[in-house]
Amino acid sequence: MTVAPSPFAPAAFPNLPAVAGVHFAAVAAGIRYRGRDDLLLAELADGTTVAGIFTRSQTAAAPVLWCRKALASGRARGLVVNAGNANAFTGHEGEQASADTAAAAAMLLGCEPDQVFVSSTGVIGEQLPMAPLLAALPAATAALGSASWEQAARAIATTDTFPKGAGCLCAIDGVPVAIAGFAKGAGMIAPDMATMLVYLFTDACIAPEALQALLAAAADRTFNCITVDSDTSTNDTLLVFATGTAGNARIDWADDPRLDDFRDGLDAVMLDLAQQVVKDGEGISKFVTIEVSGAADDRAARTIALTIANSPLVKTAIAGEDANWGRIVMAVGKSGERINRDRLAITLGGTEVAANGAPVPGYDETPVAEHMRGREVMIAVDVGVGSGGCTVWTCDLTHGYIDINASYRS
Amino acid sequence: MTVAPSPFAPAAFPNLPAVAGVHFAAVAAGIRYRGRDDLLLAELADGTTVAGIFTRSQTAAAPVLWCRKALASGRARGLVVNAGNANAFTGHEGEQASADTAAAAAMLLGCEPDQVFVSSTGVIGEQLPMAPLLAALPAATAALGSASWEQAARAIATTDTFPKGAGCLCAIDGVPVAIAGFAKGAGMIAPDMATMLVYLFTDACIAPEALQALLAAAADRTFNCITVDSDTSTNDTLLVFATGTAGNARIDWADDPRLDDFRDGLDAVMLDLAQQVVKDGEGISKFVTIEVSGAADDRAARTIALTIANSPLVKTAIAGEDANWGRIVMAVGKSGERINRDRLAITLGGTEVAANGAPVPGYDETPVAEHMRGREVMIAVDVGVGSGGCTVWTCDLTHGYIDINASYRS
Repeated sequence: MTVAPSPFAPAAFPNLPAVAGVHFAAVAAGIRYRGRDDLLLAELADGTTVAGIFTRSQTAAAPVLWCRKALASGRARGLVVNAGNANAFTGHEGEQASADTAAAAAMLLGCEPDQVFVSSTGVIGEQLPMAPLLAALPAATAALGSASWEQAARAIATTDTFPKGAGCLCAIDGVPVAIAGFAKGAGMIAPDMATMLVYLFTDACIAPEALQALLAAAADRTFNCITVDSDTSTNDTLLVFATGTAGNARIDWADDPRLDDFRDGLDAVMLDLAQQVVKDGEGISKFVTIEVSGAADDRAARTIALTIANSPLVKTAIAGEDANWGRIVMAVGKSGERINRDRLAITLGGTEVAANGAPVPGYDETPVAEHMRGREVMIAVDVGVGSGGCTVWTCDLTHGYIDINASYRS
Repeated sequence: MTVAPSPFAPAAFPNLPAVAGVHFAAVAAGIRYRGRDDLLLAELADGTTVAGIFTRSQTAAAPVLWCRKALASGRARGLVVNAGNANAFTGHEGEQASADTAAAAAMLLGCEPDQVFVSSTGVIGEQLPMAPLLAALPAATAALGSASWEQAARAIATTDTFPKGAGCLCAIDGVPVAIAGFAKGAGMIAPDMATMLVYLFTDACIAPEALQALLAAAADRTFNCITVDSDTSTNDTLLVFATGTAGNARIDWADDPRLDDFRDGLDAVMLDLAQQVVKDGEGISKFVTIEVSGAADDRAARTIALTIANSPLVKTAIAGEDANWGRIVMAVGKSGERINRDRLAITLGGTEVAANGAPVPGYDETPVAEHMRGREVMIAVDVGVGSGGCTVWTCDLTHGYIDINASYRS
């Protein structure tokens, strides 16, 4: 099936800054797809530190289990990602496949296997075809340095309709550093302490523990605030590699004030990538921002916001450009979090439609109907019990989502 | 919009037993719909006991709040249900509307207002038009006894494509008693300790406390085991009225062995109605049974089963007749409940597709693909950690669901 590009696809892949100490190769290994790159190899400079966050699924895929173990050393020299097969629910044979992939790449890169991180994405429950994968690795090694950011991003895509990249320049202690990365993901998007496949690279010199803390905090404000369809992947992986080639003095603590600019940059790059994943949500016609305020705490606000974002009735009303805000009331009600019905207020596109637990007197739907016809929908809800707040991003639920997912394996 | 009938719609409304002490009238009040009955009035014999279960939504509708209070007396003489307007998120004006409805009906029926139960179903967030409702009540009172079970069931429908009724004869202590009832519901179906609008009537003589205990236990095995779209209604109401006209000696305790046959009958009627609600699920093309075993306890099994049932990716795969069981693995993994990946087993239509945490060696998809093309899909999952089990029922997610819900208010 050919899927039309998302209406939110950018005109061109963004210009990303170079990150010294990172080299990519993208090759067509023929693991599942034909006629396109489906295997990404990255070589990382000696001394690169790494941090990662992964799916909390109880059926996490073999490469996720591998990465969790490999992360213990905090060091990375290589990354191998294949598209088309998730190597998930493949038992011990699948775990061996991830170990063999890392071992083969380690031999070629001249490092230890536990310095090689592996990811897989695609169909769940089929063994990973190892012959084409292992056969493609030597050619990929020979081609290191030949693939651009865009080619790297395209090699890991599955149902994505556009490659997703983001980057920025910032400074640590006056020394210029670069951050750049890419992501894949369009469906099975409801990150649970992690997300999809996302790889970030920086030339900053940061200790692994500090990098991990920075990453976790940023993920909480970005990838953990998006959802396409409420389904959480078995393969969610978010990795950041810091090559240390920028020349800044090594930073050991995440709360070091010298990291303020870097932290802002990392947040911005991750938020950009997270929003791009939503903007390529399967079948998307509208990009939706949901701001919840007045909750008991930030966690409660996130639960309420995600309950609204994941409601099929809210999502189909948005797809139909119907200002049926009663469904937002329904979703708030089922969230399980504490709210005050008599202080509940809802704003759509800046127009207050409900306040103090009832429709606004004299409510005129005209400006709201106009807002619903636009590409971007803004929903704000105040639940009237505290000062907790959270903003999440999602898309609508359309015929396109069903077209894509009723025939995914065909 | 005209919606085609569900492929599971029965050829005819079932024959239900007469329940002495219950009289219905169904009238066209013109509250929202035109050219159809939209107001149901029931008169119940003096001495009728009542039990009920309601939505746990934090934005429960005004009639739900009314019924919760009215239930305190355990006595009922009347029931008023309107379709087309949910009287939900209508603030204190909405609460007054429910009180006024009960008071008007009480005057006509010659009872106290708190002996009249009221329900509303339809659009959320619009004030209930009281003038047509109150104007229609005297004519309805005059017509009491004229409406059949089927006419009663039709008067409370909204997006339903067929009226849902079920009944049975059983005995208490050798005395024949009848149970009959009807339900409405097709979307916003994910009962949370309650469900949709469901009304059951029996001529048995049972104390309210015993009736409440029987109802709660049966709901746990029936309505709390279905889902159409994961969205929980603001108006979910399940009421059972026992007129006491059958002549059995009054039963005061739910665990009285003389209730064994009645309990089985109540369970069967409620399961029948619950499955009919799923079989009229918006856009349904497949009726899906999901059996989870081997969970830590029954509660965990239900959570896992409902996570599978509510997964948009599982539901769209079923709509596409795609035996993509990897998505079942995904759903089990995101449920948050304890499972043993290496003992996980999945059966589709009686064919084992996965066992011991991996695809079954030599798995042949042919019989499974054949099963997926049928109208009824059976999924069985053993998660390998305990003896908890639960069966839930759901439908697939199709273009029909989006057609219906992108234009519900138009």
